[in-house]
Amino acid sequence: MRPAAESPATARPPAARRGSYRRLSVEARRAELLTAALGLFAHRAPEDVSLDDVALAAGASRPLVYRYFPGGKQQLYEAALRSAADELERCFEEPRSGPLSGRLSRVLDRYLAFVDEHDAGFSALLQSGSVVETSRTNAIVDEVRRAAAEEILLHLAVKGPGARLRMMVRTWITAVEAASLIWLDEGKQPPVEELRDWLVDQFVAMLTATATTDPQAARVMRAALIMEPAEGPVGRLARRVVPALGEASHLL
Amino acid sequence: MRPAAESPATARPPAARRGSYRRLSVEARRAELLTAALGLFAHRAPEDVSLDDVALAAGASRPLVYRYFPGGKQQLYEAALRSAADELERCFEEPRSGPLSGRLSRVLDRYLAFVDEHDAGFSALLQSGSVVETSRTNAIVDEVRRAAAEEILLHLAVKGPGARLRMMVRTWITAVEAASLIWLDEGKQPPVEELRDWLVDQFVAMLTATATTDPQAARVMRAALIMEPAEGPVGRLARRVVPALGEASHLL
Repeated sequence: MRPAAESPATARPPAARRGSYRRLSVEARRAELLTAALGLFAHRAPEDVSLDDVALAAGASRPLVYRYFPGGKQQLYEAALRSAADELERCFEEPRSGPLSGRLSRVLDRYLAFVDEHDAGFSALLQSGSVVETSRTNAIVDEVRRAAAEEILLHLAVKGPGARLRMMVRTWITAVEAASLIWLDEGKQPPVEELRDWLVDQFVAMLTATATTDPQAARVMRAALIMEPAEGPVGRLARRVVPALGEASHLL
Repeated sequence: MRPAAESPATARPPAARRGSYRRLSVEARRAELLTAALGLFAHRAPEDVSLDDVALAAGASRPLVYRYFPGGKQQLYEAALRSAADELERCFEEPRSGPLSGRLSRVLDRYLAFVDEHDAGFSALLQSGSVVETSRTNAIVDEVRRAAAEEILLHLAVKGPGARLRMMVRTWITAVEAASLIWLDEGKQPPVEELRDWLVDQFVAMLTATATTDPQAARVMRAALIMEPAEGPVGRLARRVVPALGEASHLL
C-alpha cells in the first residue's frame, strides 16, 4: 500500500527546514527516503539507526517518514534490504562468453565492492541473531543465494545440473559469504583483489575435486579448461600447484 | 539456580501415572527431563515441541518440568542445545597421529552421525530465522564452530596459524554445515560415506589451492602429504585429478 500524494497539511516539514523543502512525486519521495535509509543501514547495525536518523538524512520530517513507511523502522529496513538485494542480483549479471575464471572474477569484484560498500549492514544481516531478522528478511537473503547459484549454473552451461554439482556451487556460495564476513571482521584484510583471487582459486579447486567423482562436473571442467588462457587465474593456479605441494609422487 | 530436592507435595505426578513414578535425585531427574527434551528437539522443529510433550516423554508432570525449568520451553531448549553442543564437541576429539585424511574422515563420520541423529533439530537450529534463536543459542553455535576450527588447526600442527589458513579452515567448516543442511534437505542423499569422502576431498582441494599462494599452508600441506598413504583418500584424489580434467597442457 502506497501513501497518497502528499498533501501540504501533513507533509510540510517543520518551519526550520522549510528552506530545503521540495515538492516531490510520491515515487520520488519514497525513493529518496529509501536511499537515505539504505545509506544508514549499510554502515550501522540496524539497532543503531532510528527513524529520526532517516528523516534527518533525507531532509524530511519524522511524520513524513511514517506516512510512507507506516510500519516504521522494520518496514524501512525491509524495503532497504529489498532494494539492496536487487542491486546485488544485478551484480551477478555477466555476459556468457569468454573464460569462466574471468567471468567469475568480474562478478566477485562487483560482489565484494557491494560488501565493502554495505559493510556494517552486510555483517549485521548475515550474522545470526540480527534484531531485524524476520521470515521476510530471511526469504530475501535466500532468494539472493538462489539467484547466485542459478546464475553460476547457467554459466557452467550444464543442462539439468545434478545433485553433486549443485551442492558444490551452493557450498562455494556459502564459503564466499563466510569469507566476506571474516574479511569485514578483519578490517578488510587482505586487499580485496587477493580475496577475489583466493575465492576464484577455491571455486576451481572445489570444482576440480568434485570432477574426480562426478562425471557431469568433469564434463563442465573439461569444457571450461579449454577456454582458459595460460596467463589467466586457472593457468596460474595450475602452474603453482606442483611446486607448492612438493614431492608427492608416492601418491600417484 | 537449581530446584531443591523434590518434596512429595509438589513433585508427585497425577494419580494415573503414579505407577511409573520413581524417586530420583535432583540431578538424575534433571538429566532425565533433559534427555527427553533432547530426543524431542532432535527430531522436531522447536515450535512443534510442547512442555506437555516433554513431560509425557519423561513420564513426569508438567508442573515438575516447570520446577526444574522455570523458564519453560526456551530454557529447556537452551539446556538441550548446550548438551547437544557438548556432545558435538566431543565428536571433534581425535588422536593427533596417523594420516590427516584419516583423522578428518573419522571426525566427519561422527559429525555426520550426529547430524543424522538430530536431523530436524539441526536444520531448525541452523536455518536462519529459528523461532528459538537468541543471543545465547547463537553463542553456543558459534562456540561449536570455533572449537571445530581450533581442533583442525591443532591437527595441522601449525604454530600461530596465519589469516589465510584460518580463513580456509573456517570457510571449509561453513561448507560442511551448508552441505549437511543440503544433505538433510535432500532426504539424506547421497549415502553418508559419499558425502564424507566429498567433504574430505573439498578440504584437500581448498588447502591445496590455499597452499599455492600462502607459504604456511604450503608447509602444512607438504608435511601432511608425506604421511598420506597411496591407497588413502588423498592418493585416490590425486590419481583421479588428471583423468578428470583431461588435456590441460596449454595451462602448464
